[in-house]
Amino acid sequence: MRSRIPLLAVVTALLGLFMTPEYTHGDEGMWLFNNPPHAQLKAKYQFEADLKWLDHVRLSSVRFNSGGSGSFVSADGLVMTNHHVGADDLAKLSTEKNNYLRDGFHAKTRDQELKCKGLELNVLTGIKDVTADVEKAVKPGATPADAFKQRQAKIGEIEKEAAKPDQNIRADVVTLYAGGQYHLYTFKKYTDIRIVFAPEKQIAFFGGDPDNFEYPRFDLDVCFMRVYENDKPIKCEHYLKWSAAGSKDGELVFVSGHPGRTSRGNTVEELKYLRDTGYPYLMTRLNRLEVLLGAWSGRSERNAQRAEDELFSIQNSRKARIGGLAGLMDPGLFGRKVKEEQRLKEYIAKAAKPGADLPWLDDAEKAFDTVAKAEKLRAELIKEMTLLESGAGFYCHSFMIARTLLRASEELPKPGGERLREFGDARLPSLKFQLFSDEPIYEDLETIKLADSLTFLATSLGADHDLVKKVLAGKSPRDRAYELISGTKVRDPKVREALFNGGKKSVDDAKDPMIELARIVDPAARAVRKRFETEIDEPKRQAYAALAKAKFAMDGDKVYPDATFTLRLAFGTVKGYKEDGKDVPPFTTFDGLYKRSAEQGNKGPFELPKRWVERKSKLDLSTPFNFVCTADIIGGNSGSPVINRNSEVVGLIFDGNIQSLVLDFIFDEEQARAVSVDSRAIIEALRKVYDANELADELTGKKA
Amino acid sequence: MRSRIPLLAVVTALLGLFMTPEYTHGDEGMWLFNNPPHAQLKAKYQFEADLKWLDHVRLSSVRFNSGGSGSFVSADGLVMTNHHVGADDLAKLSTEKNNYLRDGFHAKTRDQELKCKGLELNVLTGIKDVTADVEKAVKPGATPADAFKQRQAKIGEIEKEAAKPDQNIRADVVTLYAGGQYHLYTFKKYTDIRIVFAPEKQIAFFGGDPDNFEYPRFDLDVCFMRVYENDKPIKCEHYLKWSAAGSKDGELVFVSGHPGRTSRGNTVEELKYLRDTGYPYLMTRLNRLEVLLGAWSGRSERNAQRAEDELFSIQNSRKARIGGLAGLMDPGLFGRKVKEEQRLKEYIAKAAKPGADLPWLDDAEKAFDTVAKAEKLRAELIKEMTLLESGAGFYCHSFMIARTLLRASEELPKPGGERLREFGDARLPSLKFQLFSDEPIYEDLETIKLADSLTFLATSLGADHDLVKKVLAGKSPRDRAYELISGTKVRDPKVREALFNGGKKSVDDAKDPMIELARIVDPAARAVRKRFETEIDEPKRQAYAALAKAKFAMDGDKVYPDATFTLRLAFGTVKGYKEDGKDVPPFTTFDGLYKRSAEQGNKGPFELPKRWVERKSKLDLSTPFNFVCTADIIGGNSGSPVINRNSEVVGLIFDGNIQSLVLDFIFDEEQARAVSVDSRAIIEALRKVYDANELADELTGKKA
Repeated sequence: MRSRIPLLAVVTALLGLFMTPEYTHGDEGMWLFNNPPHAQLKAKYQFEADLKWLDHVRLSSVRFNSGGSGSFVSADGLVMTNHHVGADDLAKLSTEKNNYLRDGFHAKTRDQELKCKGLELNVLTGIKDVTADVEKAVKPGATPADAFKQRQAKIGEIEKEAAKPDQNIRADVVTLYAGGQYHLYTFKKYTDIRIVFAPEKQIAFFGGDPDNFEYPRFDLDVCFMRVYENDKPIKCEHYLKWSAAGSKDGELVFVSGHPGRTSRGNTVEELKYLRDTGYPYLMTRLNRLEVLLGAWSGRSERNAQRAEDELFSIQNSRKARIGGLAGLMDPGLFGRKVKEEQRLKEYIAKAAKPGADLPWLDDAEKAFDTVAKAEKLRAELIKEMTLLESGAGFYCHSFMIARTLLRASEELPKPGGERLREFGDARLPSLKFQLFSDEPIYEDLETIKLADSLTFLATSLGADHDLVKKVLAGKSPRDRAYELISGTKVRDPKVREALFNGGKKSVDDAKDPMIELARIVDPAARAVRKRFETEIDEPKRQAYAALAKAKFAMDGDKVYPDATFTLRLAFGTVKGYKEDGKDVPPFTTFDGLYKRSAEQGNKGPFELPKRWVERKSKLDLSTPFNFVCTADIIGGNSGSPVINRNSEVVGLIFDGNIQSLVLDFIFDEEQARAVSVDSRAIIEALRKVYDANELADELTGKKA
Repeated sequence: MRSRIPLLAVVTALLGLFMTPEYTHGDEGMWLFNNPPHAQLKAKYQFEADLKWLDHVRLSSVRFNSGGSGSFVSADGLVMTNHHVGADDLAKLSTEKNNYLRDGFHAKTRDQELKCKGLELNVLTGIKDVTADVEKAVKPGATPADAFKQRQAKIGEIEKEAAKPDQNIRADVVTLYAGGQYHLYTFKKYTDIRIVFAPEKQIAFFGGDPDNFEYPRFDLDVCFMRVYENDKPIKCEHYLKWSAAGSKDGELVFVSGHPGRTSRGNTVEELKYLRDTGYPYLMTRLNRLEVLLGAWSGRSERNAQRAEDELFSIQNSRKARIGGLAGLMDPGLFGRKVKEEQRLKEYIAKAAKPGADLPWLDDAEKAFDTVAKAEKLRAELIKEMTLLESGAGFYCHSFMIARTLLRASEELPKPGGERLREFGDARLPSLKFQLFSDEPIYEDLETIKLADSLTFLATSLGADHDLVKKVLAGKSPRDRAYELISGTKVRDPKVREALFNGGKKSVDDAKDPMIELARIVDPAARAVRKRFETEIDEPKRQAYAALAKAKFAMDGDKVYPDATFTLRLAFGTVKGYKEDGKDVPPFTTFDGLYKRSAEQGNKGPFELPKRWVERKSKLDLSTPFNFVCTADIIGGNSGSPVINRNSEVVGLIFDGNIQSLVLDFIFDEEQARAVSVDSRAIIEALRKVYDANELADELTGKKA
């Protein structure tokens, strides 16, 4: 299977010779391992990534199916990732007595390593271009719907043929360049994963929300696991060696990981929608919720605990939007998008000569207008969509549960294909899992959230709006929220399971006030959703598919495809940046950590774990702790190794700075930076703070 | 002068007999001392406020010209008010060594009492109805402008005649019922005011923002001062005696103080504007600023200190708006406003019979439509007005300073009457005082505020808006903010004084980037302000004047006039309320204080002052600390005494609960409550926590 790769590598290397900055920008790119940026690396860094190097890095890279990336870092199946990637597993393994997520975990010996529940890791063992096979399956003259079915059937066939469940070989045909290419990815699948080491959350996420997406930074966001097969650690042929020296300012580094999703193909009109309407509107809501939950949390410690997770996730989103919006507001970056689009428009115009037989041409010619029209409608409908269908006007668990029960009673009797998406047969198990989950739902928190969102609904649509009047039923938002939340029974998992299983009659008979509210709202909610799906989403999907095809016709695979949570190679320089006229240096140190904690009064998110206070004098405080580089990353890259030319680990990606949040739409290397833990900090902390010499030895090859 | 009062009292008492709930609602009313709610008090409480009682309470009441209320509480000129009313004076008297605002102050002996800087107290010594005199001054057939002048001339004449500057007698003709009545108020003026006692801010404002506007509450928001004349404490004929027993649940109490401003005459259309547009829009901004400053504060202690005051004031406004909006969203309250308006509309319709010679009739008939039209326009212009003229698009001190310099250079050469209001001769001194003040302005805080508000501007108007493009000058909001803030010189008070004094040429020559920004914005800002003033404010002023006259014609002084920061009498019951189905009892205790502090981890705004921790065992923990009553109060009432039927002090107003924030528009007694410090808590704290027995003795008449 691997035979395909050298050829591809040669071809793309040749293509690389013709590359110009027209295609990519500086250190841009989330490249396919079978189509790496040879030309850029050669031109700027005089580096040649040969096949051996590429295979080694790819086979040392690990995908976490829970979301996130990792890498093998010892011959004995040791995997390095982020604390925040391992957080779910740490939480699942925690007990009342042992809070591993908060306090960390350290298996001194192999038999102490803790087996994760339900975690699956994948290693990409093979890549094969099956584009021709997939396209051949489509019969000439097939309607789009038939073409889709024929393509899917072929893909299923290819996957089935390649998969070897008995050998834990999984096969996925991945769609790249929005259908420009189809590659068959085969993975080695591992399901016995054990936790070896995790530090305290307090040092893994030092600085909490205030320092989230910020730089300078001081986080030991690291977690080590080990992969087992047949109850024994696997033996790795490929793993990344540890760099003794770490990286230095100006050095070329690589990131191998799984960026989740980018939207770099967005048209200028869609970006304008996001810049002028979508992001600002969302931020209004996030601000509102942050203030609501923040103020409520301030009223009592109990409130604070109840709202903590939700508040953090809102703050996280808020920061992300601020960063993304700031990027969209940067005329330099935006100007590049305009120029890129112009190039594509010109290509399409040229291609549209008489007699041109390009199946995408008609759609591509109309595509920019189609998107523009859809975005205009989106701007008109976004409020109603957000309030009614996304539920921002009834923001609480109880409402969403009630609506799910109501809709389930209406949708499930229909044939699978006619149901609302989330009630399709394939999605039902996860819908039921969520619906029947017994995670605690707090009546007081539900009430303030619903009261506030009913107010938001009423002020958005106007208190005299018909639906608002029906929803409020002659009461103030606060009184109505109290009545609904205290009156509904759906917070009881047993009640909702009974209602779900009882079907329409049982849901109707329940006369539950929250379900009755959902009933009042549902016709309008379904109507706006339908308009979104048919008049916005579907035309856009078609337009973007045509544009992707035009782009692929224009540039082929001289450029990298948008991120799809498949393995990619990014590259860049260890490099600081300028902010408000000041230099932000690339590295921080342990010394900086202690200073940051002290200047913040060692409080809250800046409180150091006890060990870190006690062991301070043992540490070499000049040890580099975190650093930044220009590599092109995005969510999903968490836990990716940062390696040098010799494919040695010099760091571990765990965040991007706030300026990097525009990378969803466009690459930037002026200020956008990937943030990593320095490999030297990991070793120093393992030895001096955690007495984990055996682990440090294993990483550095000094294994006893 | 006082002779007028008995007659009025008799007349209104007679009128009272005909009162029905049509006019006022339960314990509603901020009543004039010369027109008290005799009928209501008699009907509901079997209480008769005779002239002696009224005179005594009035002459024991004190107005703080810095804003706020107080009362005489000993024969030796001791005045009681709130810590937050005295805060300005405590701050002015604080030094680096003695932070009286934070740590409190206690003069054990008279010679230790600290003289305030620039504080003036007034006692209302006389009230005379001069309506007839004032109205007589208007010549028949005078144009409105002439009528205004003639009236003002007469008022000036009356005031001049009554004032006795050599005896510190001040005379003001106050306009009541929006011109339905003119009363001559004479005041005894005191200017030698000394601080006797203030507790720590931490206990005065225990609970900080989280507990602000909330109940149950635990604040010792009290401050004592003493009035001197000729360097000796004055001897008070009238002062309020201390109640030994305090108040009890269900008891009738009175509040004598100076409510600042109410808008209970707002038409339904204006209330709808506020409910559906004005408040929600303002809250969007407040949320945004709270999140911005909160997140920035979280980044460092220094940031937190720099943003503290501004952040608190934003949080305070946010809570106030949430409360007000919740009231407007209450269909019960709103329905009452609709009904009230209907009654007035019917009265006007009836009055409009052929031959009716009522000067207000024409305007009153059109008034509802005039206001509705103005509110419609306000909804259209509010964004632009807020962004450009109110400066929300350029939210930082530097911009406001720069604009003031620019406008001063343009306005001051004009004749006084043609200038923008704030540059009129009368207002110039205070404008200069503010402009030249050397309060610190922080470059970093200015930059994040400006960057955020430029983003707000761009997302509000659209990044492609012409003015936005000019303002951003091809840069991102963040880069542009940095460039402007680091480039301007106006943060230096000397620079701005020189520019102000140098006039137009010097301002033009400065080429200061922030002044140049103000120049870019000013044409549009002035244009939208002009539309606001001429098409919204002025027509509304005229419409409301006509409606006030119609209302006065309808009800006369059977109702109380809107608040005007003049002395008023409110009454009510000590009474808890129901919230979310739970009873909120009327009283809290010291025990509750300690519990609240403990449950909040004794941290932040819930940290107790050292003394309170040390002296806990000495205190009777069952002492009532704060309590609520239904009296009709609003901002300006801070520091008002709460008294019983015997005019004895049982409490001290310091806040309203969040449900009381609707009182700006309409009275409510279901949940709205005035919040007071209990008189018993004051004595217990003075004796046991502060060793201020001499002060407690003076208050309780046990003076040594």
